[in-house]
Amino acid sequence: MTVSPASLQSLDLDPAFALHRGGKLEVRSTVPVRDTGDLSLAYTPGVARVCTAIAENPELATDYTWVSNVVAVVTDGTAVLGLGDIGPAAAMPVMEGKALLFKEFGKIDAVPISLDCTDVDQIVETVVRLAPSFGGINLEDISAPRCFEIESRLRERLDIPVFHDDQHGTAIVVLAALQNAARLTGRSLADLRAVVAGAGASGVAVSRILINAGIGDIAVADSKGILYPGRGGMNPVKEALARDSNKAGFTGSAEQALAGADVFIGLSGATVSEEAIASMAPDAIVFALSNPTPEIDPAVAARYARVVATGRSDYPNQINNVLAFPGVFRGALDVRATDITGNMKVAAANALAEVVGDDLSEEYVIPSPFDPRVVPAVSEAVARQAREDGVARR
Amino acid sequence: MTVSPASLQSLDLDPAFALHRGGKLEVRSTVPVRDTGDLSLAYTPGVARVCTAIAENPELATDYTWVSNVVAVVTDGTAVLGLGDIGPAAAMPVMEGKALLFKEFGKIDAVPISLDCTDVDQIVETVVRLAPSFGGINLEDISAPRCFEIESRLRERLDIPVFHDDQHGTAIVVLAALQNAARLTGRSLADLRAVVAGAGASGVAVSRILINAGIGDIAVADSKGILYPGRGGMNPVKEALARDSNKAGFTGSAEQALAGADVFIGLSGATVSEEAIASMAPDAIVFALSNPTPEIDPAVAARYARVVATGRSDYPNQINNVLAFPGVFRGALDVRATDITGNMKVAAANALAEVVGDDLSEEYVIPSPFDPRVVPAVSEAVARQAREDGVARR
Repeated sequence: MTVSPASLQSLDLDPAFALHRGGKLEVRSTVPVRDTGDLSLAYTPGVARVCTAIAENPELATDYTWVSNVVAVVTDGTAVLGLGDIGPAAAMPVMEGKALLFKEFGKIDAVPISLDCTDVDQIVETVVRLAPSFGGINLEDISAPRCFEIESRLRERLDIPVFHDDQHGTAIVVLAALQNAARLTGRSLADLRAVVAGAGASGVAVSRILINAGIGDIAVADSKGILYPGRGGMNPVKEALARDSNKAGFTGSAEQALAGADVFIGLSGATVSEEAIASMAPDAIVFALSNPTPEIDPAVAARYARVVATGRSDYPNQINNVLAFPGVFRGALDVRATDITGNMKVAAANALAEVVGDDLSEEYVIPSPFDPRVVPAVSEAVARQAREDGVARR
Repeated sequence: MTVSPASLQSLDLDPAFALHRGGKLEVRSTVPVRDTGDLSLAYTPGVARVCTAIAENPELATDYTWVSNVVAVVTDGTAVLGLGDIGPAAAMPVMEGKALLFKEFGKIDAVPISLDCTDVDQIVETVVRLAPSFGGINLEDISAPRCFEIESRLRERLDIPVFHDDQHGTAIVVLAALQNAARLTGRSLADLRAVVAGAGASGVAVSRILINAGIGDIAVADSKGILYPGRGGMNPVKEALARDSNKAGFTGSAEQALAGADVFIGLSGATVSEEAIASMAPDAIVFALSNPTPEIDPAVAARYARVVATGRSDYPNQINNVLAFPGVFRGALDVRATDITGNMKVAAANALAEVVGDDLSEEYVIPSPFDPRVVPAVSEAVARQAREDGVARR
């Protein structure tokens, strides 16, 4: 297929296309290359002394290469935004976007890596072989349930941070926002009964972090309804989650479980009816996080719920992963963490929640991504927790 | 191993170490990220329209991602500079250096990839899986003879340029310099008998390009002496080269073959004696290219040879790969070439030789890497030849 210059001009009438022409990233030198003197330091013969020193003491790679500040943003293109399995080439604009968010918010150099393979073993082996080039691995837009196994095997094999942002980035921001919403309404997490619609990457991770944080009860639904032990059509990850959730023993749909519930968290791409939201308990909390179309119109939800959050920037309370991943990786890289532990994720959520402080209101349970306090607060909390958990190398 | 701040301070007394602190590269955004409006174009929801368009017409990835201007600089750390098999972590400063040369000279974004595997199959499979993320693959510092098979298999599997710079970068620059040295002394390549010391990556590639360009005769030596059909201790690549070279039928050492020879090309890291250089024909041409220590002191060689070249910047006639690879990739990327053909390499050498023009002299058979005419001349010649060879997509 050949693309004519005229058809490109026509596409570029859309400002998103115009902005994407030629891509969104570049690699630059941070040292001067003006003359042979510069080259003799940055390249041969000077570089040989640095290489020799690292060969003798590998720890020096941290100080004399860019590796310790570089994160690979790795995808196989199987679960891109709301678009699904569009493949590695079409996923690249999202990976480039992620990389620029890493730099703008976390001062982290990130390289988009779109892989031409979808087999779990192949992805794991490929990333393991790439690892000497990177200080951390951010997995992105890899479909569930493959993403769970890929992440857990990579965490086992590698001694650098591995973080599937669709899972944990979302989980951290949801936990932070929910803690603040609970505080606003004079409750603790233990007082809340939640319903999560969606048992993919983000639904599972959000449910897990809320269970670990002590939520009162949580029922998780996939497209076939609420997960419960013995239900059919579940993968091992859902089976484990069914055992650890749903104390109330729901067996029907998410909407049925919403009657009298305190919290709805939509991570499904499906819709939830006005009637179901109306059936929730007083001071209900609704996080309708599907993008670009929330599970319910936030204006409609606000008729029944005390706090409404979405994934969109044009409504209050935007649940946006960029509130988490730049600070999480910044903190982990700063202390050369060998892992990102569960405690570090909770510490990130706590720090993020605390940024809101006394300004807490129905329309402000989570800070703006552009709030300059966010990344320092999250990164410091993550670094501190890494030291406490014994995974910090510095 | 922990590195104390004091020991780093002491290393940094060497300006090469001081320059390398924190690495030599960064990734930057080329688009603004000031507010939610910018984010809605560079990231969600705007990016989804670009992804969808690429999914429908993959050719658009060329125009709306950075991929078509990004080259992966791939090594396994087995043959780094003159240092040998120092591994992927210690190879990184060289790969970063290469990447900054790509940018400074070729305006190409290059990403250093040091692989934690040395098996040929694993390297090939890994690079194939990475390919959707890159517009070209520059193989670097991979030991012979593995490098030959890796390159040839990748060229077969991928529809983007694959170029092992240690082979072809060196070969292109040597051919250019030798053409000019021959012209200076009123001869053509067909008039010359050459001896190449070294049958690794660069020795093989230099010999091959000179044979293709019609050199009169060429004898190639490894550490066991001149290659000839039936000699023991050869790999298949050397066996093929033995059949295609050495018309004169030498069976001894490189130094023995030098008696009466017109050209010596040192790519071995070993030394050549003053007596051997003294035994060469009148108007001898000596390229002593090992770095940082040439096979013979250039001042000594100049007593007997008409033209002397080295790999060093502090002598005249520096044979430096940076004269070739930025322009070769720039030209190949500009026309979205699917391959870098043999003709394209010869076209690069011819264009490079022509830059010297009427300024040709014993001390100027090859331009300076900082000559601003070099990259445009090479890239235009390479792009033109790509079209003639039918490998250009644009």
